[in-house]
Amino acid sequence: MSELRKDPVTGRWVIISTERRKRPSDFRVEPHQVIRDEYCPFCAGHEDLTPPEVFSIRSNGAWPNGPGWDLRVVPNKFPALQVEGGLDREGEGMFDRMNGIGAHEVIIETPHHDRTLASMSEGEIERVLEAFRARVLDLKRDRRFRYILIFKNHGAPAGATLEHSHSQLIALPIVPEFVREEIEGARHHYADKERCVFCDILRQEMALGRRIIIENADIVALAPYAPRFPFETWLVPKRHGARFEEAAGHEYEALARLLKALLRRMNRALESPSYNLIIHSAPFSEETSDFYHWHLELIPKLTKVAGFEWGSGFYINPTSPEEAARVLRDAKM
Amino acid sequence: MSELRKDPVTGRWVIISTERRKRPSDFRVEPHQVIRDEYCPFCAGHEDLTPPEVFSIRSNGAWPNGPGWDLRVVPNKFPALQVEGGLDREGEGMFDRMNGIGAHEVIIETPHHDRTLASMSEGEIERVLEAFRARVLDLKRDRRFRYILIFKNHGAPAGATLEHSHSQLIALPIVPEFVREEIEGARHHYADKERCVFCDILRQEMALGRRIIIENADIVALAPYAPRFPFETWLVPKRHGARFEEAAGHEYEALARLLKALLRRMNRALESPSYNLIIHSAPFSEETSDFYHWHLELIPKLTKVAGFEWGSGFYINPTSPEEAARVLRDAKM
Repeated sequence: MSELRKDPVTGRWVIISTERRKRPSDFRVEPHQVIRDEYCPFCAGHEDLTPPEVFSIRSNGAWPNGPGWDLRVVPNKFPALQVEGGLDREGEGMFDRMNGIGAHEVIIETPHHDRTLASMSEGEIERVLEAFRARVLDLKRDRRFRYILIFKNHGAPAGATLEHSHSQLIALPIVPEFVREEIEGARHHYADKERCVFCDILRQEMALGRRIIIENADIVALAPYAPRFPFETWLVPKRHGARFEEAAGHEYEALARLLKALLRRMNRALESPSYNLIIHSAPFSEETSDFYHWHLELIPKLTKVAGFEWGSGFYINPTSPEEAARVLRDAKM
Repeated sequence: MSELRKDPVTGRWVIISTERRKRPSDFRVEPHQVIRDEYCPFCAGHEDLTPPEVFSIRSNGAWPNGPGWDLRVVPNKFPALQVEGGLDREGEGMFDRMNGIGAHEVIIETPHHDRTLASMSEGEIERVLEAFRARVLDLKRDRRFRYILIFKNHGAPAGATLEHSHSQLIALPIVPEFVREEIEGARHHYADKERCVFCDILRQEMALGRRIIIENADIVALAPYAPRFPFETWLVPKRHGARFEEAAGHEYEALARLLKALLRRMNRALESPSYNLIIHSAPFSEETSDFYHWHLELIPKLTKVAGFEWGSGFYINPTSPEEAARVLRDAKM
């Protein structure tokens, strides 16, 4: 029997269609080979192919915009938004618009073309998280921005146009709707119960265990109760906190460890899928610290699944979260 | 300069990133050839390969479940929801669930394997719309259902698993979130202005003309002001009405004509793309007749565009609606 399940944060109903259940082997994963590219703009030695860096980690004190770095952040060469100018908010009759002002940066996670988050060391992944934090702390001083979206498209089917491991960051003058929905849902829960909805979810899930994939001292990886996509996974810090950039050092370290372990299990169980990884954190200009709870959402891009969901935002998921969690728990390295 | 634009119905902001503008020729369209399949369960003569029909149009008085039909509606052989049983609404701790009760039907639009909505006659398309209406009128008598979702996935990249031209219908015990968002937005606009937001949009767009693609006496095809996807198109009836199934006969006829003309233009301009077509209509159990306005949304599936939008519901669209409308206006047959 299929089930309809309601996401306790956003109130969104999804169909978990167990009659159409897909086992991991039923998903066709588009392979994405790593081909060394002579002209990869993200490789060490090709620093002149990117705009000048806005942040870097260099253990040996090398000069900016030359080789010898461990991680670089550069403006996106083809930005979706641009940083100079005023917002010029205006109406067009009944419509509302503003200029596409924002920052669009690329975090080049490693100088090595063939390394991925799953094959990097935990220390290297922690460095990536530190870079996210540093860029957020810098950009949030700009009063034009309301939100910073940090995401990673891994593999061409997930939207990556360059294969060298990188993440992206977009600073926005608006709060994206998917964040807005979570915030309103969490606000509603708090108004009702005086408790954070994510803390409530964690408490219940950890007592039950069925949808927990892995955990360590600070972070839990779980399959959410009403997932939109097969093998959708949330990484949630155990300690309540609204903002990614205000996490403690040991939380970044724990997140790096758990993310690596999770990706390795996913690579094993799902044949190294493409994926999207998105950090969910509180907007800048709102007081949400009591009820919002930062976390990461990881969505492997398993083909033969996306249909009209794409345009409608209505989801039919052929894999139950209980099965997804079990498969990933069993996929030991 | 990129722009941020707000959808006047849902309040969703999208980025129209003209710096990354894609011309039609920049989209890689995955070709989907029509290969005649000996075992296609939707072809005439193969009626025994589907569950027994729940509706058909037979001009020559042939018997049900045999050949001689113009259109058949059958239950989906692999339904996302099933029709027998009670909803058994229940909580699982803080979570809410119910059984996956609903109807999931397939509208086989033609007995001919190689015909598509774009190549059918206007009369044949009108027959498809009539079948939608007949099934909605029948299913809405079932008090368990709150909404009937009618959609078409054309081509494998858009989620079609069989190539023989068909649509689907899912009767649901809940109202999908994307409909809920539209209704709340339209309700808000009406509370504010005592006018339907879709009627306001039509009035402004028709006065301006820039985003109008084609129109006839009853229906307008337009590129919405804040589209999520390149070449996203709405087909909106000029006469206000909340429900698809309550449209007048001449409106179905006009819609069939406009849909065919639009698809032929799209096939010409975008090299016969896959697409998703979704009917947006009012839920059954709510009084929305003053402020909701039924319409169709057509989203061609142009690859190399979808990235993390898939999981986040946050959209960066590389094609402005003004350009999309111009390209489709110019794509005369």
